Amino acid sequence: MIKIVVDCFGGDHSPKANVDGALAALSKTPDLFIVLTGDESLLREELDGKEYDASRLEIVHAPDIIGCDERPIDAVRLKRDSSMIKAVRMLRDMDDVHAIVSTGSTGALVAAALTRVGRLRGVIRPAFCPVLPTMDGGIVGICDSGANVEVTPDHLRQFAIMASLYMERTYGVKSPRVALLNVGKEAEKGDEIRQVAYKLLEETPEINFVGNMESRDLLSGSYDVVVCDGFSGNVLVKTTEGTALELLKKLKKDIYSRTLYKIGALLMKRMFADEKEFMNYQNYGGSVLLGTSKTVVKGHGSSKAKAVEKCIEQAYRMETSGLGPAIEEVILKYEHYQD
Amino acid sequence: MIKIVVDCFGGDHSPKANVDGALAALSKTPDLFIVLTGDESLLREELDGKEYDASRLEIVHAPDIIGCDERPIDAVRLKRDSSMIKAVRMLRDMDDVHAIVSTGSTGALVAAALTRVGRLRGVIRPAFCPVLPTMDGGIVGICDSGANVEVTPDHLRQFAIMASLYMERTYGVKSPRVALLNVGKEAEKGDEIRQVAYKLLEETPEINFVGNMESRDLLSGSYDVVVCDGFSGNVLVKTTEGTALELLKKLKKDIYSRTLYKIGALLMKRMFADEKEFMNYQNYGGSVLLGTSKTVVKGHGSSKAKAVEKCIEQAYRMETSGLGPAIEEVILKYEHYQD
Repeated sequence: MIKIVVDCFGGDHSPKANVDGALAALSKTPDLFIVLTGDESLLREELDGKEYDASRLEIVHAPDIIGCDERPIDAVRLKRDSSMIKAVRMLRDMDDVHAIVSTGSTGALVAAALTRVGRLRGVIRPAFCPVLPTMDGGIVGICDSGANVEVTPDHLRQFAIMASLYMERTYGVKSPRVALLNVGKEAEKGDEIRQVAYKLLEETPEINFVGNMESRDLLSGSYDVVVCDGFSGNVLVKTTEGTALELLKKLKKDIYSRTLYKIGALLMKRMFADEKEFMNYQNYGGSVLLGTSKTVVKGHGSSKAKAVEKCIEQAYRMETSGLGPAIEEVILKYEHYQD
Repeated sequence: MIKIVVDCFGGDHSPKANVDGALAALSKTPDLFIVLTGDESLLREELDGKEYDASRLEIVHAPDIIGCDERPIDAVRLKRDSSMIKAVRMLRDMDDVHAIVSTGSTGALVAAALTRVGRLRGVIRPAFCPVLPTMDGGIVGICDSGANVEVTPDHLRQFAIMASLYMERTYGVKSPRVALLNVGKEAEKGDEIRQVAYKLLEETPEINFVGNMESRDLLSGSYDVVVCDGFSGNVLVKTTEGTALELLKKLKKDIYSRTLYKIGALLMKRMFADEKEFMNYQNYGGSVLLGTSKTVVKGHGSSKAKAVEKCIEQAYRMETSGLGPAIEEVILKYEHYQD
């Protein structure tokens, strides 16, 4: 049985999206056990009248909520009765709890995970790895996308190892093509961190390093993993999402500007719906934190039930695929680790 | 008379695009004088049969070409007879030559400009400032987009001052809204460089600093200038261009997948052409290098005649708007400068 805690508050559509997503995942996966954290009476209200296997669902009362504007470290220290911190503490204290899924404050979740859950052996810095769709129908993982705004070449090598194993084991990508985000393709491009990292990545036979990637090629389908510092990775992911959304908005506005366009768009209704669905991050699950000793998945703040369900599936796959031990095995070849 | 040197080789469509762009600019601007550098016989061939005011056009023979794969510093040192280096040396040596426009190697142009042309008084690091269209019909300048992969808070303040004056004087943007690219809106976000830069920008009354910007809001129309290090700025600009292009490609492919969509698209033909034009960087000129003692404009390698013409217009406006002296005046308030 895989036991996953779902933090049911802190998202834009909480607790409904979190509860409905949890129930959907529960019904599809027989060996899944879900713990919901949050205000018990609100959660009971949300569950009321819905069908589910009550023997695989538990509620843990946690009346407090962490807001997005709270300082992460303060929230972790002071809001022990919040749905998020209670969930993280269950992860820390209970051997049979495997993973957490949260749609709450990213900063608080990272701070709580790092200080309360700890890291896999040998991992210096856990890193976020969201996944985006590529134009050929595939996906690409971006690691790190924001947990570490400053990095060293060694960190970047670890991100590459972790993300490569993640794409392989969780998404079934064979021998993932790993690229280093840089300002040009040539090995000597970028600052010293990038230049040294390039060499380290070349000297790591456990990954399939294919060289530098310029950001304009992210969606081309030529890469499965992009390694970067959390600052530029954050820019990469959010610029892609932002540009896609702004363009769709503009198209919609322009379509409404003329009757002829409206008729044309009517014929293409299905296609536009498909494009929108294709670019909807809710279909691609959350951003996992790689390198923590237990699985942490962060869903988008605006996640609806479907996105929460995807996040739970992701956490389940990570736990059942032996990802953690696989990461430790490779990382420990390169890092000295003392228990 | 404003004298501008146009480096006619090194671009994908050189020399035709460069020559045609130069002639178009020449015909529209009576007090413009153009110098073309490159292989004289090839340039004469290109000019053959075309109408132009020969009294305002000069050819300077430079038979060599710098390739995109050459090491910038070597190219600057060794290829003295190349169209680019000869153009840069004219800029350095001749008082009446005001600006250079090139579609050749970015690295070589930056290296040549910094070592041969020099900087405005007080400027620590010149920086690139390309301009992108926003979804409300405006534009946004991004500075730096690649000349400096590592920066200090002082550099970022200088980028802000230079880019703000550039948008104001060259594009007529009143009191440009300047933002700092960061991983979140709050003042304490990002690394130490960003945190210190935030304070410096707040303490600079000559600019209208509006706070941090997350990359997803770049095209929203809420900002006129975005300040960033050259690494993340490069990611920002190229991700935007890349995402827009990939999406248009996908739309086109999907349209061709069904007859119904093809008919719909036919009704919307004009609209799609407008969208394509809207996203065509050729309409927005080149990336100017701010902070050099004379004007340097870098056109996209794939520039066609229209884009080259826009670059020349840009260089002309920069020279006639008193941008350089205006930058020096503000920068020197904050930097000690010794001649």
